Parts: sequence; C-alpha cells; structure tokens
Amino acid sequence: MANDKKLVEAITSMDVDFAQWYTDICKKADLIDYSSVKGCLIIRPYGYAIWENIQKNLDSRFKALGHENVCMPMFIPESLLNKEKDHVAGFAPEVAWVTHGGSEKLTERLCVRPTSETLFCEHYANIIRSYRDLPKLYNQWCSVVRWEKTTRPFLRSREFLWQEGHTMHATAEEARAETVQMLNVYADFHEQDLAIPVIKGAKTPSDKFAGAEDTYAIEALMHDGKALQAGTSHYFGDGFAKAFDITYTDKENKLVHPFQTSWGVSTRMIGGIIMTHGDDNGLVLPPAVAPIQVVIIPVAAHKEGVIEAAKGLADRLRGDFRVKLDDSDNSPGWKYSEYEMKGVPVRIEIGPRDIEANQCVIVTRHDREKTIVSLDNLEAAVRERLQAVRDGLYAKALANREKRTYDCKTMDEITAKLAESGDGFVRAMWCGDPECEDKVKETTGVGSRCIPLDQAQISDTCVCCGKPAKHMVYWGKAY
Amino acid sequence: MANDKKLVEAITSMDVDFAQWYTDICKKADLIDYSSVKGCLIIRPYGYAIWENIQKNLDSRFKALGHENVCMPMFIPESLLNKEKDHVAGFAPEVAWVTHGGSEKLTERLCVRPTSETLFCEHYANIIRSYRDLPKLYNQWCSVVRWEKTTRPFLRSREFLWQEGHTMHATAEEARAETVQMLNVYADFHEQDLAIPVIKGAKTPSDKFAGAEDTYAIEALMHDGKALQAGTSHYFGDGFAKAFDITYTDKENKLVHPFQTSWGVSTRMIGGIIMTHGDDNGLVLPPAVAPIQVVIIPVAAHKEGVIEAAKGLADRLRGDFRVKLDDSDNSPGWKYSEYEMKGVPVRIEIGPRDIEANQCVIVTRHDREKTIVSLDNLEAAVRERLQAVRDGLYAKALANREKRTYDCKTMDEITAKLAESGDGFVRAMWCGDPECEDKVKETTGVGSRCIPLDQAQISDTCVCCGKPAKHMVYWGKAY
Repeated sequence: MANDKKLVEAITSMDVDFAQWYTDICKKADLIDYSSVKGCLIIRPYGYAIWENIQKNLDSRFKALGHENVCMPMFIPESLLNKEKDHVAGFAPEVAWVTHGGSEKLTERLCVRPTSETLFCEHYANIIRSYRDLPKLYNQWCSVVRWEKTTRPFLRSREFLWQEGHTMHATAEEARAETVQMLNVYADFHEQDLAIPVIKGAKTPSDKFAGAEDTYAIEALMHDGKALQAGTSHYFGDGFAKAFDITYTDKENKLVHPFQTSWGVSTRMIGGIIMTHGDDNGLVLPPAVAPIQVVIIPVAAHKEGVIEAAKGLADRLRGDFRVKLDDSDNSPGWKYSEYEMKGVPVRIEIGPRDIEANQCVIVTRHDREKTIVSLDNLEAAVRERLQAVRDGLYAKALANREKRTYDCKTMDEITAKLAESGDGFVRAMWCGDPECEDKVKETTGVGSRCIPLDQAQISDTCVCCGKPAKHMVYWGKAY
Repeated sequence: MANDKKLVEAITSMDVDFAQWYTDICKKADLIDYSSVKGCLIIRPYGYAIWENIQKNLDSRFKALGHENVCMPMFIPESLLNKEKDHVAGFAPEVAWVTHGGSEKLTERLCVRPTSETLFCEHYANIIRSYRDLPKLYNQWCSVVRWEKTTRPFLRSREFLWQEGHTMHATAEEARAETVQMLNVYADFHEQDLAIPVIKGAKTPSDKFAGAEDTYAIEALMHDGKALQAGTSHYFGDGFAKAFDITYTDKENKLVHPFQTSWGVSTRMIGGIIMTHGDDNGLVLPPAVAPIQVVIIPVAAHKEGVIEAAKGLADRLRGDFRVKLDDSDNSPGWKYSEYEMKGVPVRIEIGPRDIEANQCVIVTRHDREKTIVSLDNLEAAVRERLQAVRDGLYAKALANREKRTYDCKTMDEITAKLAESGDGFVRAMWCGDPECEDKVKETTGVGSRCIPLDQAQISDTCVCCGKPAKHMVYWGKAY
C-alpha cells in the first residue's frame, strides 16, 4: 500500500527475466495475493475491478445478441460427467472430487465443474420440446476448477473466473454461425477494448475441445514472443444432444436433435493484458477496462488553491471517466511511479503555474508523452488522449507481432529463424497429418496454434513431410 | 414456454397449500429448474435476471459507501477452517469436502466455502500492517455451499448465491458502526426496492453467527405469517483477528488487533419476494428488480396499425424502463395470464380504439387497476404507475404484518392468539435466560426471531418465567 515516501520498489526488468517481471507486476500492482491452496488465487480489488469492467463490457455485447444469463450448480455427479465419452476422457483427469457432505460419505461423488456442457445438456433435455423453444442462447459467469499441476497467476490456475456460453440451435448452419459470431465478438473485444491484436483460427483436430467437432480460438502474441490462447468457441454438432437425449419436434412434426455450441473467455485475459502492454515501469492498462482511467495529481499541493483546483478537475471529469484524485501527502514523484506501476492510462498534473495559465499537463502512460491542455477543452482532450493510448497500445502490440512473425518453408528455416530472432509466430504449411504436427513441435519447439481463417500460401508443400499442403498454420510456443 | 394458445396452467391456491403454491410459482414463472444434485438449483434466465437487478442495485450502494469487490478462492483447507473454534463448530457439520484432485488423494482435504471469514482473515493477516491500511472494506459476490438436509428453492439450498462483506477497522466503535450501517443498507433496500417491510434487531446469544460477538438481522413476515431472516450483519470484535494473528501498528506505534465485521444477503431474498407479494395468479415483482417492468400487448393485433403502434410505444419507453413487447400470435388473454404469472408490474394494452383516441390502457399487476392514459403523458404515467405498484405492495405487506403481529403477556396468550389468528409475529418480553427462550419455543411453537432495535414495553416481566424482563422480543415460526 501507498504508505510512505520512498519511491515505488523497482520490479525485475522484462528483458532480464520475463516470468519474474510478470509475477512482480501481479503482486506490485496489487492485482493478486496467494491463498493457502496452491493454484487458487486471491484477486485483489484493483485486479477484480479490471475483471468487472471486462464483464460489464462483454455482458452487454452478449445481451445485445440475444443471450441470457443463467446460473448452473457448481457440482456435476460422476455419472453425468461420464455421459459423453470424449468429454469425460478430456476432463476427468483434472477435476476436484467432493466425496463427503458434512460427516457423511456421498453415495456418488461429485466433481466441481471444470466446464458445464454436461449440466447445460441435462437442463436443455428438460426444457427443449419444440422448434419454438429454439434457439436457446444461455451464458453464465462463474468460476471453474481444473486441478493443474503447474500454475501461474491468471494464466493457469486451479480455480479461475470465466464466462461460458452454451447455445442450442435448430440447424447445424445456425450453430456454426453462432460459433463464428462469438469468435468474432471475442476478437473484436480484444482488438478494440483490450488493444490486443489477435489471429482468428481453427484448432487442429488434436487440439480440439473434448467433445467438440470444431474448436476455434483467438491467439495473441505476447511481448516475449510466446502465444496466448485468449478465447475459444466450439461447435459440437449434435454429439452431446445424442448422448444426453435432447430432442425437439421440428416444423414437420419430426423428433430430431438440436445442434450445439459453447464459447468462453476467462481471467486469463488479464494475463494477456499484462504480457502484451506492460513494461519495466509496471502495468499498462487499455482505457476500456482500466479501473482508473485518469489519475489527478496536484503539484506543489501546499500552495494555495492547488488542492481545490485538483478537486475541481476530478469532480468535473467524474461524470465522463473513471477518475481518481490522489491528494495524499506522498510526493508527486512517488505518485507518478505508483500510478505507472498500476498502469493508469492518463495522468493529469496541475500546479500553481498551470492554474494561472488555465491549463493542465496530461501524460499518457504508454509513451510518457506530455501534452499541455487548456482547461476549456479538458473533456475532449482527455477523451482524445485515452483513444491515443488505446491506439498506441494496439499499434505497439501489432508491430511486435509483425516483427515476430516468420514465414518458413522448411523445418531448418524454422529452427534458424527462432534462434536468430527469438520466439514468435511461425507461419508454415501443413499437410494435415497429426504425425507431422507432432514432429514439427518435437524438432523445432513450436506447436500448432491455429489454422487461421485468413489463409496465405507460404509454399505448396508441408513444412515437415514435403507432401502437398492443406493449410497454412500458425505455430508457436504457448502459455 | 409460451408455445400454444391454451391459458396459462393454474397454480395451486396459496390458501389451499402455501408450500405447493410457492413451488408452483418457482417452476411456472420460469425461475428455476432442478438439477440432478439434490438441493442444487438451476436459476433460469428470468430468475437470474431478478438476481442481476438485485446485485446491480446493492453493489452500487456498497460502492457508494467505499466498499471494494474482491474474489477469494472457493476452497478452504481444513486446518484454516479449524483456526477459530466457535466458527468451525458451527460450520464443519455442514460442509462439502474435496478429497481428491484428479486421481490423486489430497494431503489435506479442502472444504467448499460455506462462508469466507477464514479466507478473508488469512488475506488480511498478509496485507494489514499499519493504521494507514485501515479500514479494509471488502465484499465478494459468489456462491457458497452448506450441506443442508432439507432444501427448498431459494430458501434453503445446498449451493446458493450471495454477497459477503468482510471489513476490518482500527477501533471497535468503527466496526460496530459498520455493522449497523450495513444492517440499515439491507433494511432500506428491502423496504424501498423490494417493498418488503422489515424488523431490524439483534439475534439472541443462542442464535448468533458462529464466532460473532453480535449478530443483527432483518426479519420479514411472509404472507402465511411465517418469518424470514432476510439479511444478517455481524460484529466480531477482535476474536478472529486474535485467532488469525492479524495485527497492525497504531498511531502510537503499538502492535494491536483490528476489529471486524461481516454481512450478507443471498438469493433467499427472491424467496422473500415470492412469499411477500405473490398471489394466486403467480409472481408479483417489485419494479426495482423486475426483469420486465412494462409489457406491451397489442389488442386486435391483426387490425391495421396496431402492431406498429405497440412497437412504437415499446421503442419510446425502452430508454426509461425495462420493456417487453409481446407481438407473438398468442391471444391477448393468454398473454395477460402469462405476464401475470411472471409478475410483470405494469401491462400496457393498445388496440385500434386506443390508437384513435391517442391513448392506451395501463393495468397494474398487484391490484389489476386499469388506468386510461393519454399517449402524450405516457412516460410520466408509467413512472407513476410503477411507483404505485411499489407503494401498493409495501402497504399490503405492512398491513399483513400488522394484522399478524400479536402483543402477548403470557404463554397461554401466545398459544391462544396463534390458534385464533394464525401464524404471525408475537411480541413478548424476555428475561434474557436461554432456558426461557427454549421453553417458549417448545410450548408455543414460536422461536425468538430478534430483539428489535425499536423496543416497546409490552409488560414488565418475562413471558415465560415471570422474572423482570430485559428485552422485548419478536417471536415467530421461521423459514
């Protein structure tokens, strides 16, 4: 906490140790604390406020598209989890099992949901009768549990917060359209609001969600050149519907199965924000989700009228922006460091000379650019500066990705390029054989991230076996 | 779902079987569905939308008072739960235990949080160092699990949604003030927004929260004369702080313990809404939390211009109110029944003659009063009608409570009054002895609900033993 006059403690430089830099930011920007259960995080108020802004923004996008929120139980009976074979095979090894209620042993053990397809299916089987009941466009915000061996704040934890959309449709076409629509919502949210450029693509068959016919993902490249899967959208066909006996009477009065999707994003996005935009001074937050968009810092605060002027600015801006006035007795220098660590996009400084000149100084976090602004146009200037932060962050992240995207035609080229230029996305052709996919990873260290919707012909043959290529694939090391 | 032309199925009358009437509403108004885990509810979109409105409203009240949201893990290691003796004794018999992660047996079993005092204390021990770190005013929205034997939708379930505030203060006075402040927030929310009159009071020592020095509650009287504890606020003193070794350096540089509170309300409030305001036509929702405040129903919809006029009204009102237009081909009569079942506070009917006369008909759900309103003043009229619903619901609930509140001086009087007038609140004096408290319950069937903050002297002696009375107590049968 901001208790004393010393400057904010420095964090490990990202170039020295990226992993330690990441952990330092999580702790020093007051995003998280550890609990006594390994891999179960405490998300502190400043971190949780980012999540609340993410939620608010995504939730309104979901609702605008007709989705409704529901609340499913957190427990899944073992027999219910077992109903869809691929699904249980994928999740059973990593679930937490409840075996006792109070002092009594349960007759059937319950897992804490790792995802809720099975619960939604059971419910849909109860409530879907007729084509008039379709589509069902449900979503829930909740936490899920996956008993991971290695954990890292936000990126991989045993319990994490997320949303899971689960929808049912009369036709395969409609369900496929929903899958792609939600992928696009995620992509747009990342690019516009989080200022994170993403690649939209399909997962290879070996990397699909347990039980899905097709899995789509958005993939982002972090500052260190590693890839982050930032959101997924699945098309299930009628596989679960058959396993769970979900049927409806169609317009021709025939009993048929509906078609299903699910899609989700999680607190992992906060990890993505840190690793895309952060720097050696700390966190850098995109304005759309920043808990504080504008921090106001009085300079020479002991001089007459300065605190009052700073308060006046705060009151004036509060209707339009998320504003914090720091009128504590810490020095301006300490405050600058503190709010840089916390990634506040825009800082306003106001001192006696500014007041006299009817102006203030605006500093943007990501590039430390100073602008002197007349108080007459303050709202417009702040709005313009916030947009400049978003645009600047996006451009910087895109430039990093472009610099670190390598088109390769052979395995040797991949190895050489990664050795020369560091981690990044490799774009290379693939024949579609899972053996080649595995071999690329074993030999070069980069796994398939996705088959991008936006294809390009790097060469005509598979980077591995030399047979005719089917797809261009993004390869990378993944978080 | 609203699939066919038949009128909405009737529900059991509340006078015939109140418990069945309650369950019928939960199901027929599409609030809930059952899952395959006993006591774990599915909250359907219409029910969850009520909760979202409750959340939004309370959350902004909490934040306006300086509270911040956080997210704690859902698991508590057994050793952590065991740290405060009274607390563990109260909760251990009813927690769900996780014993396995994947295929591995855990070295220490974890309970799914029944409440999070222990988790907050562990965190506070980490982050509170100095008086400058106080107060800490944290809250979280989450679900908790208590392995109840008998369960009922919303009123008592094994998993339920709630918020839990947990605050730490430098002084006992400040913590006590917080406890009472939050009790008042809950009371005000119930009375203003849920239109449910409540009694504010302290729980008797035998009824306090496990580990608390004082527990306050708001108690509401349901339509059937039974009491519902609708929210609680606890003062912990420094008991948990001592058990968890939470200390801070005060202004005199001494190491001392802080003082603590917690407070919570849950989806139980939805049960309270149903049982306070519902009637034989279904749910009746207070406008502040109704997912649909205004439903617009075209009459003689096949006539030219009617659908368009109804759409026009919907578009016009949507900026100010939560509006639904039902232009489906169900009959107006079917629609009236459907939205009465769902408790929509205000219905607007518009037909060809209304259009001609530049008017519409507004019907309020709770009293079926019809008002003919000029379209020129529509917004104001809707606003006035919604306020009339809230005021009408509150007045009706208050009249029910007053009719069913009995001042009694002897045990015989209690028995006779309950036999004559039915269940309700009994106001009677108490000497403070837990034996008398138990005996009143055994003999008359009503237990102590609370010692109201607003005391009255019904007589000078304990209703049970005849010794000098210390408190007036509200007694009742409880949900």
